[in-house]
Amino acid sequence: MNAVSEAAQAPRGRATAEMVAEKARVSRVAVSRAFNPHASLKPEKRELILKIAQELNYTPDRAARALVSGRSHLVGVIVPDVCSHWESQEIDALTTALQNEGFATLLFKTRTDYSMDEQLLAYMRGFNPDSVIAFVENVKPRTLARFLDRAVPIYVHYPHTGMAEEGEAEGPLHDRLNVLQHDGIDQAVALLQGYGARRIAYLSGLDKSRASHAREQTLRRVMAERGLPPPVVAPGDFSYQTAYQATIDLFKVGEGADAVFAANDVAAFGVMDALRHELGLRVPQDVKVVGFDDIAQSHWKSYNLTTVKFDLDERVRALVRLINRRLNNPGAPGFQETLNTRLVVRGTVG
Amino acid sequence: MNAVSEAAQAPRGRATAEMVAEKARVSRVAVSRAFNPHASLKPEKRELILKIAQELNYTPDRAARALVSGRSHLVGVIVPDVCSHWESQEIDALTTALQNEGFATLLFKTRTDYSMDEQLLAYMRGFNPDSVIAFVENVKPRTLARFLDRAVPIYVHYPHTGMAEEGEAEGPLHDRLNVLQHDGIDQAVALLQGYGARRIAYLSGLDKSRASHAREQTLRRVMAERGLPPPVVAPGDFSYQTAYQATIDLFKVGEGADAVFAANDVAAFGVMDALRHELGLRVPQDVKVVGFDDIAQSHWKSYNLTTVKFDLDERVRALVRLINRRLNNPGAPGFQETLNTRLVVRGTVG
Repeated sequence: MNAVSEAAQAPRGRATAEMVAEKARVSRVAVSRAFNPHASLKPEKRELILKIAQELNYTPDRAARALVSGRSHLVGVIVPDVCSHWESQEIDALTTALQNEGFATLLFKTRTDYSMDEQLLAYMRGFNPDSVIAFVENVKPRTLARFLDRAVPIYVHYPHTGMAEEGEAEGPLHDRLNVLQHDGIDQAVALLQGYGARRIAYLSGLDKSRASHAREQTLRRVMAERGLPPPVVAPGDFSYQTAYQATIDLFKVGEGADAVFAANDVAAFGVMDALRHELGLRVPQDVKVVGFDDIAQSHWKSYNLTTVKFDLDERVRALVRLINRRLNNPGAPGFQETLNTRLVVRGTVG
Repeated sequence: MNAVSEAAQAPRGRATAEMVAEKARVSRVAVSRAFNPHASLKPEKRELILKIAQELNYTPDRAARALVSGRSHLVGVIVPDVCSHWESQEIDALTTALQNEGFATLLFKTRTDYSMDEQLLAYMRGFNPDSVIAFVENVKPRTLARFLDRAVPIYVHYPHTGMAEEGEAEGPLHDRLNVLQHDGIDQAVALLQGYGARRIAYLSGLDKSRASHAREQTLRRVMAERGLPPPVVAPGDFSYQTAYQATIDLFKVGEGADAVFAANDVAAFGVMDALRHELGLRVPQDVKVVGFDDIAQSHWKSYNLTTVKFDLDERVRALVRLINRRLNNPGAPGFQETLNTRLVVRGTVG
């Protein structure tokens, strides 16, 4: 009987790191390093250790390790809504990227008004996350800081101006992913203008969303710069249903528009369906439609939406970089990453 | 200066449970109970303790507590794909329900072939989850058991027969949520038959998916019972794009069909878009379409899909019940919950 099959038949139960080290003829430290994706170790050595660890049914206890190392390998993610299309795609890509870096994703949902239950924040702290990413700016750095021991929160931020505000250090230490919306919006308005649209309506997102406010402010500025009248604002909430109803109101009660700029793609689908199925209008011949996000559904033939793209892969890479930079430099001043947007042209403007 | 504002100005730093107990004039045990949503405590008392804990910036350390109590308050969730529509809606509802019960959701993604990286499983064990829900049956109980210390995994299971297999105890202890697909499929086929459809195609899900296989087997049996010829099977993978291409093949290369039964709603959207936009066929006049899941998008006017509904709220409640029953009865034999499906009739059959 060789060593492998012997080990495979070992009774279930937790082996110790020492047992693994002895069997692999490596040091106890090497075993630790093998389980830390960030520690350097020869690939063959890591492979051997992991193989033997598996045979012996050994895994490091993360709760015990967290107390010693101070690292939990958990990344808290605060989102308002997992099942919104954009966010589910972002959480999916982020979870994959974090797993590859040796982190697990710990999900927290905000209340519907984007605030966060303080008991839940206290809970979050109890898990001692290595990092926390806030996808809404409504949970303020000052609030989060009260509930974090060592994690420096990362905010996804949508500046109003075309530039990231350098060195803005409101409240306690935090890192930032700045998403500049100006370029994509400017390209969209130029395209609409090029096809003769003048009266452009903005179908807003949730009133509580800072991303939607920034989007509206940027649109107003771009339209003014281009000599267009200010947008009519139809109140939305990022949902298909509200967009559908708001579009009917806009065209039946209000004065309509040459084009509708929706705060996200899903709302743009609601706009299109109301225009076509309820109002008997053609897209893009009668009314042009632009969305925001470029979710996978924007390719679907029923919509084939022209939209302002946030590059998901770039976003995820930037977030992972921010986490690792911060863990390597716990005391450094706030880090920033900045991403741009661009227009993806499909069939709803033209 | 009163006690509240004094406390609010206390320096940041972790207070102890004893400090909270002293200030709230309660016992140390009461402070523990206040932070455990499952422990009984008078609401006024809990409120007071949580208020003072917040003023003093106290939260229990979950890593330390986990070592003592043996409970991590983490529920591991194994999914193939967070951004599939059904799963994102399920994770969203489940995260909300778990938060209300005092658990946090720890996300793990399988490989694209639905298997799970063993290093990742070792990782999962390190977090010492209280429970693990496997949304794919491909990660077998025997495999999972090797990587769990005390969590008893919950499987979402789709039996082929009309009944849940009672007492099936394959492999190590696990709990089960059985989803019976027969009734919804039978209703769908009856409706299709009632509107004259005879040649029914099945657009399959991923070959690796046991849910899709169970769906196909059940459809075959139902169609045979109803005197219909066996379904033509078009190979899909739950995605819009593959469904779109497979539908073109089915009608251009193959012999077409009176109706297409798709393995999920998103594939049904792909079928509809291919029929309408590529093949110039009308739904439901020329071809009828039925989906599976009843995701939120099925209401959208462009699709307005007739589909077999899995009740999301019921599913989530059943999963939370399974978790709590198991934690209260760690040694009990496998628990089962059983849910049914039903047809939701909209505009794609008629």
